[in-house]
Amino acid sequence: MIKDLILVNGEILERSKAVIAFGDRGQQFGDGVFELVPVYNGRCFALLPHMESLFASVMSIKIPGIYTVEELVEFHEGLIAATGLENGEIYTQVTRGHGNGGLAFPDMMVPQLTMFAVEKDRTCLQEVQEKGVNVITEPDQRWQRCDINSLNRLPEVLAKQKAIVGKAFETLFVRDTKITEAVEGNLMVVKDEIIWTHPANNLIHNTIAGRLVKERLVPDMGMQVLEKACTVDFALGAEEVFLVGPHYEVVPVTKIDRKFVANKQVGAVTKKIQAAFKNFIAKECPKK
Amino acid sequence: MIKDLILVNGEILERSKAVIAFGDRGQQFGDGVFELVPVYNGRCFALLPHMESLFASVMSIKIPGIYTVEELVEFHEGLIAATGLENGEIYTQVTRGHGNGGLAFPDMMVPQLTMFAVEKDRTCLQEVQEKGVNVITEPDQRWQRCDINSLNRLPEVLAKQKAIVGKAFETLFVRDTKITEAVEGNLMVVKDEIIWTHPANNLIHNTIAGRLVKERLVPDMGMQVLEKACTVDFALGAEEVFLVGPHYEVVPVTKIDRKFVANKQVGAVTKKIQAAFKNFIAKECPKK
Repeated sequence: MIKDLILVNGEILERSKAVIAFGDRGQQFGDGVFELVPVYNGRCFALLPHMESLFASVMSIKIPGIYTVEELVEFHEGLIAATGLENGEIYTQVTRGHGNGGLAFPDMMVPQLTMFAVEKDRTCLQEVQEKGVNVITEPDQRWQRCDINSLNRLPEVLAKQKAIVGKAFETLFVRDTKITEAVEGNLMVVKDEIIWTHPANNLIHNTIAGRLVKERLVPDMGMQVLEKACTVDFALGAEEVFLVGPHYEVVPVTKIDRKFVANKQVGAVTKKIQAAFKNFIAKECPKK
Repeated sequence: MIKDLILVNGEILERSKAVIAFGDRGQQFGDGVFELVPVYNGRCFALLPHMESLFASVMSIKIPGIYTVEELVEFHEGLIAATGLENGEIYTQVTRGHGNGGLAFPDMMVPQLTMFAVEKDRTCLQEVQEKGVNVITEPDQRWQRCDINSLNRLPEVLAKQKAIVGKAFETLFVRDTKITEAVEGNLMVVKDEIIWTHPANNLIHNTIAGRLVKERLVPDMGMQVLEKACTVDFALGAEEVFLVGPHYEVVPVTKIDRKFVANKQVGAVTKKIQAAFKNFIAKECPKK
C-alpha cells in the first residue's frame, strides 16, 4: 500500500489536509486540465512528452504557466519517493484557481496544481491483453476540442459508465458514423497490413501511448500508419483491432457492439505491437 | 454586504470552513450540475421552475436524488435569511461526490450539495437595458447536451472571456451557421412581428427567464413565438434583437460583431417585453 499523500502547489500533504478551496474554478466550471503519467518500477513512463502535453493543454485554455518542466519532473519524483509508488499512475491537475463566481477569467489568476499517486496492479491486465476485449459504441457528443485534456469530462464519465453497465471493457465514441477514439485510449485497426487510426486533430486526445505506437513502434516494424477515420463496419471487417491507452497499454479488441471482429481472435500484428510496447516500457523504466 | 456563508449538504457554514474534499468528482471531472436562482427583495424568483430544472439536470447525468423540492426551498430561504441577501443570486451545485479516481461511477454515490449567495447591484444593468449592447459571435464547440446545466463549462468560460477582451457584453454561439444562444442567456429576434428563437432542444439551455418570455409574456402581448434557429445575417436584418437571461433579464442587442442590427436602436417590442418582465418580477418578488 502506498502512502495516501497529495501534492498541492509543490507541497506534499496528508490527504486529510489537502482540501480544495471553496470557489476553485475547477470545482465550479471544470476550468482546468489534467495529465496522467504511468509509473513502472518506481519510474515515470515518458515523463517529458506527458509534460509537453500538459503544457499544451494549459496553453490552450489560457491558464498562465506556473511551473517549469524541471519543477514538474521534481514533483513527480518527489511524490513517487514520498508515497512509495512502484506501479501505477501519477495524476496531475491544474485549475485556473479561485474565481469571483463569474465565468470570465478572474483579474488575478493563481493556478492551483494538485497531484496524487494511484497504485495499480497491472497483473490483472494480462488476461485482457492476451484474450482481447469487447467494446461498445456510443455517439460522440463531446465538445470539439477533445485534443485538450480538460477537466470537462462528463461525457467521458457517462460513456465509461455505459461500458461498465454493458459489461464491456471500453466505449468507442462514434461521430458522424466514424469512430473517433475510446474513452481512455486510441483505436487502431489493422487492414491490408496498414494501421488505420483517427487523424490527430481536434476530435481526439492524441495520447502519448498512441503516439508511441504510431510514431515509433509501427515504423520500427516496417509497417505504415494511415491517419484516416473509419466506420464501425470497416473495423468489424478488418484483420485486427486494438486499443492503445495509458491505463491498459495495448489491448486487442475482439468484439464491437457484440459483433465479432472478422478475425475473431488476437492477431499477429497486435501481438507484435504489444511486445514492442512492453519492451519499450522495460527499457524506459527498468527495475531499480 | 451579505454574510459570506456556504451551505454544504444542508448545513450553513462560514466560507473558511466550507471546503471541497480532495477527490470530489466535481473538481476532477466536472461531474455535476448547477442551478442559479435570481433573488429580488430577499425573495427567490421562480424558485419551483428552477428546482424542476435542477432535478432534470441531476436526472440526466444519473446522480441519485438526495433532497426533496421542499428541502431545497428551505435551503434557499435559510441561506437568504442567514446571509441577509436582498438582491442577487443563489447558486446551487450538486456533484456526484467523492470518487475512487476512475471515470466510472463509484459504487457508493454520495452526492454533494453546495450553495452560496452572490450579491448583485442591478442598478448598473439599467444602462444596458436602456441603451442596448453589442455582442460578438463564436463557433459553438460545446458538447451536444447543452440542455443539461452541467459543470462542464470550459467552452462557456472561454467564450465569455472573448466577450470581455472584445469589450462586448456577451458572446453568441454559432453552430452550423445558426445562432444557438448566448453564453448566459437566450437570443430572441423580432421579425415580421414574430419572435424567433432557437428550438428548446439539446443545443441550448432553455432558461427559466427565456421560458417566461416565450410561454407567458409574448403570448400575453398577443404575439407569437417561432422556435426556429436563424443566422447572424438574419438577426442583423431583423427589426429587433434581444437577450433574455437570469443575470441580465431582458437586454436589447444593437450590434453583432460590430455591425448594427437593422433598426440601430432599442425597439418597441423589446421595451414592452422588458416592462412585462420587470412587472412579473415585481409581482413574484414584492418588497417585504
